[in-house]
Amino acid sequence: MKLVPLGDRVVLKQVAAEETTKSGIIITGEAKEKPQQAEVVAVGPGGSVDGKEVKMEVKVGDLVVYSKYAGNTVEVDDEEYIIVRQDEILAIVK
Amino acid sequence: MKLVPLGDRVVLKQVAAEETTKSGIIITGEAKEKPQQAEVVAVGPGGSVDGKEVKMEVKVGDLVVYSKYAGNTVEVDDEEYIIVRQDEILAIVK
Amino acid sequence: MKLVPLGDRVVLKQVAAEETTKSGIIITGEAKEKPQQAEVVAVGPGGSVDGKEVKMEVKVGDLVVYSKYAGNTVEVDDEEYIIVRQDEILAIVK
Amino acid sequence: MKLVPLGDRVVLKQVAAEETTKSGIIITGEAKEKPQQAEVVAVGPGGSVDGKEVKMEVKVGDLVVYSKYAGNTVEVDDEEYIIVRQDEILAIVK
Amino acid sequence: MKLVPLGDRVVLKQVAAEETTKSGIIITGEAKEKPQQAEVVAVGPGGSVDGKEVKMEVKVGDLVVYSKYAGNTVEVDDEEYIIVRQDEILAIVK
Amino acid sequence: MKLVPLGDRVVLKQVAAEETTKSGIIITGEAKEKPQQAEVVAVGPGGSVDGKEVKMEVKVGDLVVYSKYAGNTVEVDDEEYIIVRQDEILAIVK
Amino acid sequence: MKLVPLGDRVVLKQVAAEETTKSGIIITGEAKEKPQQAEVVAVGPGGSVDGKEVKMEVKVGDLVVYSKYAGNTVEVDDEEYIIVRQDEILAIVK
Repeated sequence: MKLVPLGDRVVLKQVAAEETTKSGIIITGEAKEKPQQAEVVAVGPGGSVDGKEVKMEVKVGDLVVYSKYAGNTVEVDDEEYIIVRQDEILAIVK
Repeated sequence: MKLVPLGDRVVLKQVAAEETTKSGIIITGEAKEKPQQAEVVAVGPGGSVDGKEVKMEVKVGDLVVYSKYAGNTVEVDDEEYIIVRQDEILAIVK
Repeated sequence: MKLVPLGDRVVLKQVAAEETTKSGIIITGEAKEKPQQAEVVAVGPGGSVDGKEVKMEVKVGDLVVYSKYAGNTVEVDDEEYIIVRQDEILAIVK
Repeated sequence: MKLVPLGDRVVLKQVAAEETTKSGIIITGEAKEKPQQAEVVAVGPGGSVDGKEVKMEVKVGDLVVYSKYAGNTVEVDDEEYIIVRQDEILAIVK
Repeated sequence: MKLVPLGDRVVLKQVAAEETTKSGIIITGEAKEKPQQAEVVAVGPGGSVDGKEVKMEVKVGDLVVYSKYAGNTVEVDDEEYIIVRQDEILAIVK
Repeated sequence: MKLVPLGDRVVLKQVAAEETTKSGIIITGEAKEKPQQAEVVAVGPGGSVDGKEVKMEVKVGDLVVYSKYAGNTVEVDDEEYIIVRQDEILAIVK
Repeated sequence: MKLVPLGDRVVLKQVAAEETTKSGIIITGEAKEKPQQAEVVAVGPGGSVDGKEVKMEVKVGDLVVYSKYAGNTVEVDDEEYIIVRQDEILAIVK
């Protein structure tokens, strides 16, 4: 069972807090817009989104920092995923 | 009696909570924007919507996760349906 | 005496609650955006609306489900009508 | 002394409540957007309004139903007028 | 010392309440958007404003009715002026 | 040390209250949008701003009246500056 | 480990308060939009952002003043970074 995102949507899987500490990355955030670190697990096709051409810049496996505010959380087979628009991804962590 | 959606509207039928548990999918959500799992029962023709060209990407029978916030609920012949814009559908569940 | 809508406006006549029950259609709604069933009694010419080309997709006699939120109610010769933009019509009931 | 509206503005003169009753038209409205019946007394030239081409569809003498919400009231020589954008006019009453 | 407005801005000088009564014009208004009568004392060049081409339609000396809501008040050499966008001018009084 | 503004940003230096009184200019304002008199000390290059072509119309040394609401205050070497978008400048004072 | 920003995003590292005092720059701000001084540590590729072509004007090493309101804070390897859109950068400090 898997999630196939539409348009410019990206499916993310949050990196557990333990791992985050190990890699030396701690994420802090504003009250209304908490940035989050996550791994990309599925990427929409992009194309025409709200009348604008969107090219997908992230790929499966990328570790990203995103703005959680507009994301939606979904649980599939006991795993929790977050679905965001690509524009809500701030940076790739390399 | 059936619903024929206009423009980029999509008619959804929510998958019952029992089925959801069986398939191993549990959906959680933010306070204001609860994602929901549902089956597509009718798809609008797309085309020019608010001056922008929209191509329909979902088809009847697709199982989808959607953002319930802007949806409208309608009951026809004792069945409850939700009408959303395609852009409010986050991903197809496969 | 009749209402001739401008632009993408559509004049609707609500189907009485009694009829609704007979046809097996019951409409429920969100707090802020109550969907409603009604019959189309007049359709604007469409064309350029707010700088965008709108083609009218509904016709007189169509039974439609609409989002009541932005509609205006007018009473002419003891009949009550609702005037909505075509985009506020969600689906045609067939 | 007269009002010459700019752009897509239209000057209206409300039809008195007495006349309304005589013609069999009673207007009801939502809390925030009260539709109103009025006669068109002056029509702006249309043309480019906020970067969009607007063609004026109403003419002096038309009886119209409008959405009062954004209108401005002006009194000239003891007569009260309402100035609305053409888009705030819902329908012509014929 | 004088004010040279930029873009689609127009400098107005309010007509005193006394004059208004003499000319038989009394202006009433909504709580949030009070229309006002004033004389045009300076007109911006128009041209490209927020990516849209604006042609100035008012000229110095015009008596206008405007929507005060977004205007800014400035005092130069003991005279008070109001600076509005041309789009906030509703009609020319002739 | 100096501020080089980006895009359509303009760096202003407020004219002290004392000077203002000497030149006979007193500025009053609305609660939310206080107009302010200031001197232009640096001008951005203009060009493409939010997808729109902006041509800079003010130059260093101009005395301007601006809408303070969206401005940001910065202190460099004990001098306080205000950074606004050109569109927030209402008029040049000559 | 490093942050590679997407689109028109820019990664900033705030200049410590001590340094700020040494260089003679003190930054004050409005309640809702606090300008901040920071050094650019990474710059997105620009290109098509929300359907508009964005050209990056800042480069790594630039000292900038930015509007903090929409920024997101991220901590990588014990260093705190701020990710902003280029449009939220007000000026380069030279």
